[in-house]
Amino acid sequence: QHLNNLTKPRDSLGRLEELAMRYCLIRGTTTPIMGTKKIFCFAGDHGVADEGVSTFPKEVTRQMVLNMLDNGAAINVLARHANIELEVVDIGVATILQPMKGLRIAKIKSGTDNITKGPAMSVPEAVKALETGIRLANESSAENVTLLGTGDMGIANTTPSTALFATYLGMSVEDIAGHGTGLTDEGLKHKVHVINKALRVNKAQLNNPLETLAAVGGLEIAGIAGLILGAAVNHIPVVVDGFISTAGALSAYMLNQNVRDYLIFSHLSQEKGHAIILNKLEAKPILDLNMRLGEGTGAALSISIVEAAVKIYNEMATFSSAGVSNKT
Amino acid sequence: QHLNNLTKPRDSLGRLEELAMRYCLIRGTTTPIMGTKKIFCFAGDHGVADEGVSTFPKEVTRQMVLNMLDNGAAINVLARHANIELEVVDIGVATILQPMKGLRIAKIKSGTDNITKGPAMSVPEAVKALETGIRLANESSAENVTLLGTGDMGIANTTPSTALFATYLGMSVEDIAGHGTGLTDEGLKHKVHVINKALRVNKAQLNNPLETLAAVGGLEIAGIAGLILGAAVNHIPVVVDGFISTAGALSAYMLNQNVRDYLIFSHLSQEKGHAIILNKLEAKPILDLNMRLGEGTGAALSISIVEAAVKIYNEMATFSSAGVSNKT
Repeated sequence: QHLNNLTKPRDSLGRLEELAMRYCLIRGTTTPIMGTKKIFCFAGDHGVADEGVSTFPKEVTRQMVLNMLDNGAAINVLARHANIELEVVDIGVATILQPMKGLRIAKIKSGTDNITKGPAMSVPEAVKALETGIRLANESSAENVTLLGTGDMGIANTTPSTALFATYLGMSVEDIAGHGTGLTDEGLKHKVHVINKALRVNKAQLNNPLETLAAVGGLEIAGIAGLILGAAVNHIPVVVDGFISTAGALSAYMLNQNVRDYLIFSHLSQEKGHAIILNKLEAKPILDLNMRLGEGTGAALSISIVEAAVKIYNEMATFSSAGVSNKT
Repeated sequence: QHLNNLTKPRDSLGRLEELAMRYCLIRGTTTPIMGTKKIFCFAGDHGVADEGVSTFPKEVTRQMVLNMLDNGAAINVLARHANIELEVVDIGVATILQPMKGLRIAKIKSGTDNITKGPAMSVPEAVKALETGIRLANESSAENVTLLGTGDMGIANTTPSTALFATYLGMSVEDIAGHGTGLTDEGLKHKVHVINKALRVNKAQLNNPLETLAAVGGLEIAGIAGLILGAAVNHIPVVVDGFISTAGALSAYMLNQNVRDYLIFSHLSQEKGHAIILNKLEAKPILDLNMRLGEGTGAALSISIVEAAVKIYNEMATFSSAGVSNKT
């Protein structure tokens, strides 16, 4: 009702109005306040990187974490641009990282195991990763964070993400696997083969969402899923980044479908399959900018748009307050 | 080359990289600096409003200008959000406005004449409106504005915009006319009839782009066209708002096709016809948020994304500076 009283033709701000309304509904208020905006970028390594499914060497996970802590990554630039707090979470980087400002050390294990040879992690390890995300959401709520974003860093992580999508949604790997950081067509063919092998090897462990997440998922993906579960409990909207974060979001959704109402999908990734998955989830992303970087970069751009939407709700004049004639 | 050295997979920031490159090309530098960002919102009235082509009464143009000067309109909220200067230009509001902070008084005449009865304005008046826009671009350049945005306020202005599109592109009015601020289907039918009548009445005045702009355009549309012509000369990229601003952009393009390289189309308006027009111009807008408000609201959201793109170019680490391994 308030949106319809603002000095504009009804519905003329389109998705901004929808986002303002969703923010209000999730926060459970008609007088929304925007507190701190925060992105957690979960970093983890993947044993399956040994199968040559990425164009980048595995040590880049650690190198990029250090780059983020040094403010040199894309997510640093975009988070700063939109005044978003960024915390990098070492939930499973293969090498030991020293304590540093901006880094949360919450390592469950030093990278997942190679999913072509067995499960990525044990079920208790997956639970620990989920609980890490939940804990971060709880802490965020206590620190007046009112809008969360997800991010990821993990060389080879489109591989477990694709394995999760295929299993959860009963789809063929071929239909959703993409070029990741820049595979050739031949490289993609090999990646499909690797993912199919992982699904065969772990077949006995794909009975329910939690087992599936442990068997063919990733530590950062489970961390994202946990953050989403915790955010929903705390009435905090979560802006979901791209392909990897959507795998985390779908994992959370498979564990508890109620989280769906708390998710705002930020952008359509260029990674093949993302469009199909979002369609399945009936999710209409805010942006379509041909991006495929991860880290939370799509979330950062979209958080700024969600904030703009809330400002529209809070700061515009109404027809009566401004003395503007309404529709005849 | 610099974009490809940044710590990300090549091209993975998609349109952000394209926007950063376009900003550099337009500014003519590989070391771009973002100065002031500014939106000019041109306000003008339309004699054709008397034909009942809008759901809002004509006095809303003046009321909304006052609302903007009082910071209560959507464009105020979104410009403030993205730290964009806003100046409202009275280039043809029907009533006299007193000098106020934030208002540029540059009235050519008190609204256009009714285009169903003759030309909207004389050719010299159209030239004056173009020159007003050019002057504002020149001033902006002198004041270190390095990114401009367009905006409009004018009850009934989808009507002249549609007349211009139909004439410039040789299209039928039926194909591009839309519901504007919220016409019923019957209202839209009437609007189509009015526009076709205006094109018949002014047929002898549609021989070239300038005459066309004068005959069936609007003062704010000509002002926008002038701003774009002036921006191009001054090497300032212009972020074009929605339907009305695109009519201004197309008018500028018809006068001098070289302006095309300086235009960044902000968003796809919900107004029917915008998609067709953008397609004709081979323009891929940055955003698609179901908006149809005008004022510069789409430009404001997109200017923030262009600025983010320039920051990506300027602030990210390179593979060598960050010690990150490149693609294998």
